Amino acid sequence: MSEDKKSAGLAGIVAGQTAISTVGKEGLGLTYRGYAINDLAENSTFEEVAYLLIHGQLPNRNELEDYRKRLISLRGLPNALKTVLEQLPAETNPMDVLRTGCSTLGCLEPESPKREQLQIANRLLSAFPSMLLYWHQFNTQGKRIETRTDDPSIAAQFLHLLIGKPADPIHVRALDSSLILYGEHEFNASTFATRITASTLADFYSAITSGIGTLRGPLHGGANEEAMGLIEKFQTPDEAEAGLMSLLQKKQVIMGFGHRVYKISDPRSDVIKGIARKLASSSADLNLFAIAERIEAVMWREKKLFPNLDFYSALAFHFCGIPIPMFTPLFVIARTAGWSAHIIEQRANNRLIRPTAEYIGPQPRPYVPIEQR
Amino acid sequence: MSEDKKSAGLAGIVAGQTAISTVGKEGLGLTYRGYAINDLAENSTFEEVAYLLIHGQLPNRNELEDYRKRLISLRGLPNALKTVLEQLPAETNPMDVLRTGCSTLGCLEPESPKREQLQIANRLLSAFPSMLLYWHQFNTQGKRIETRTDDPSIAAQFLHLLIGKPADPIHVRALDSSLILYGEHEFNASTFATRITASTLADFYSAITSGIGTLRGPLHGGANEEAMGLIEKFQTPDEAEAGLMSLLQKKQVIMGFGHRVYKISDPRSDVIKGIARKLASSSADLNLFAIAERIEAVMWREKKLFPNLDFYSALAFHFCGIPIPMFTPLFVIARTAGWSAHIIEQRANNRLIRPTAEYIGPQPRPYVPIEQR
Ligand SMILES: CC(C)(COP(=O)(O)OP(=O)(O)OC[C@H]1O[C@@H](n2cnc3c(N)ncnc32)[C@H](O)[C@@H]1OP(=O)(O)O)[C@@H](O)C(=O)NCCC(=O)NCCS
Ligand SMILES: CC(C)(COP(=O)(O)OP(=O)(O)OC[C@H]1O[C@@H](n2cnc3c(N)ncnc32)[C@H](O)[C@@H]1OP(=O)(O)O)[C@@H](O)C(=O)NCCC(=O)NCCS
Repeated sequence: MSEDKKSAGLAGIVAGQTAISTVGKEGLGLTYRGYAINDLAENSTFEEVAYLLIHGQLPNRNELEDYRKRLISLRGLPNALKTVLEQLPAETNPMDVLRTGCSTLGCLEPESPKREQLQIANRLLSAFPSMLLYWHQFNTQGKRIETRTDDPSIAAQFLHLLIGKPADPIHVRALDSSLILYGEHEFNASTFATRITASTLADFYSAITSGIGTLRGPLHGGANEEAMGLIEKFQTPDEAEAGLMSLLQKKQVIMGFGHRVYKISDPRSDVIKGIARKLASSSADLNLFAIAERIEAVMWREKKLFPNLDFYSALAFHFCGIPIPMFTPLFVIARTAGWSAHIIEQRANNRLIRPTAEYIGPQPRPYVPIEQR
Repeated sequence: MSEDKKSAGLAGIVAGQTAISTVGKEGLGLTYRGYAINDLAENSTFEEVAYLLIHGQLPNRNELEDYRKRLISLRGLPNALKTVLEQLPAETNPMDVLRTGCSTLGCLEPESPKREQLQIANRLLSAFPSMLLYWHQFNTQGKRIETRTDDPSIAAQFLHLLIGKPADPIHVRALDSSLILYGEHEFNASTFATRITASTLADFYSAITSGIGTLRGPLHGGANEEAMGLIEKFQTPDEAEAGLMSLLQKKQVIMGFGHRVYKISDPRSDVIKGIARKLASSSADLNLFAIAERIEAVMWREKKLFPNLDFYSALAFHFCGIPIPMFTPLFVIARTAGWSAHIIEQRANNRLIRPTAEYIGPQPRPYVPIEQR
């Protein structure tokens, strides 16, 4: 890598302050509002964590009950949005569906003094699963589904709308935990894009729309889909090892490995790996898990690279029966909590985010009339 | 302003390299690919400048003819997109319409090896005026207009679709020049957001969608609409002076003044002020111009702040008969050229843009079960 490139990407540059999470701080690992990610993934629910991220403290029982009820009440989609979703072809990337759905909702239910930021954060948390699955079922089953279910959680509603019946509680809990792990991650690329959009004092929907578009890329959220594509390619661990070695020889980037900030391991990976292992045992498909572990071992042996959250998340989603193109959209659903917290934080002490560039282009030159070119 | 805030916003931080434009470099002012902005605004057309920004050099006569014809051929909208635009209510902010239109087109005509970045840049340059005015005429006149006109330029087509007949050539040229001035501006907030989205290897439409949402805020593109709102409020220059003094006393930020990078003046402002003055004379409405000049004088006297591009652009657009809510959308149409150039540049030497944050939140704390909260 050239020196120019090494210094690019704002690597290690402090771009602002946050009280929402720590990433890779020595001795701290990953915390949300001071709580260790492992504690949250084990003991909490995604709704509780979303409340924590957005409001700054864990809800008590009444607050959580109110919050859950409010979220449940916001699952319906306006007819105009349904019509828009019906225009998006079956082969559309579901990330593009969510990006368009978010932007459309911003037209139909714009931010205003009567509809302020906390309301919109709640609305989007509830509307994203509905949008995605309304569009999905319309295109795959030709059905216009009712998204206003009374499932007790976002995870339960998502799986219910996906498979058309209440889901296995083991799958619901696995998905719930994974949403917790995906909920927030400091100034990652999509969150930083969200904050830049917010820093011009643009509306809430514009900021979240930037987040979705940014998350879509394979170097960021898109990595979980690519990781599954890789794991699925192989029949046995030995085959995986051989295949991976040849990819590495070709200097290919292996999605689901490495991280800009973590240098030794991703604390979320152990948690999601444990979940994926349990799901693998209960589905009796231990081969896929063994293939994944081999890939992990080879990546460490050859490149000293460790799995990030996306690698075993892919496997966990797969064991829950979720189709690959919905992996990154699930990341959106979870990260809407973190993005919302960051928009609110950015607005509370705003300054326009506007860096400068080093100019490496042509020196001043006289304009040449078209006849002389 | 607190020290924390002063250092925020990446002010003065070099976030990467660019060969596209210089902003505020001593002795250089504003150049696009080495050409001074004044030369371009005076001698060139927007199509020529878009070509320059995206391809790196001025087109010769044949290249320009081909480019213009290609752009003209891309003005039609797919039916599904028209249906989507028809769902967006009349009171929608037109920036939300463009953001949604761009995102929708990304679903209908996605980026792929068969439809690559240059094609999409062209397509969006041509489709944005069509989207905006299709939506506008549908909502204001109940008409489904034909957007495939043979007007020779984007400026001509825009005004034609707006007023329903070929526009005054003086207005077309004024709009054309203003699109040149708005075309590109280094690592401004919307362009930087666009590059962050591109840096995850997300698709072209996602990156442009981030740009639109970011431009929407009043601290950035939205400033031209706010500036017009201010100028229009007053009947006379004296009234403007009194009104402005009272706003300044209340510590209000006056949109259309100041700049993150320029510290003495905005080189684009003189050009657009000249254009606005000519339009004012020919429309015989010199009062509005005098009010604007008084605001400029008071801002300099009181705060040593100078008008940026947005201040007199507002007046120029107004004299061309353009409604205020279309001012920032015109900025989108122009900046699509710059954004496209930056996406292409970012991709050519990509590294994920991911800074870090200074943590100022709670120290690690034990998880408290819900019964104990
Ligand atoms: C996450 C990521 C973008 C961090 O990027 P970064 O901080 O810019 O890291 P760099 O690209 O500078 O990587 C440093 C070196 O490790 C290599 N590397 C990093 N991640 C790699 C991976 N997943 N596979 C193979 N090599 C990798 C790079 O090629 C580079 O090698 P070089 O110095 O010989 O060019 C990067 O690790 C990556 O692309 N990972 C795969 C995508 C992914 O899983 N994203 C989700 C992140 S949660
Ligand atoms: C463009 C802009 C966002 C640059 O922001 P910045 O580099 O962060 O500048 P700051 O906000 O730090 O401004 C420095 C000081 O000048 C003041 N200031 C800057 N622009 C001002 C304006 N337009 N009206 C009144 N005061 C202004 C600030 O309030 C600040 O004063 P303080 O130190 O007492 O708090 C800012 O000038 C602005 O808000 N302008 C109006 C919006 C606009 O026209 N945007 C289009 C830009 S092309």
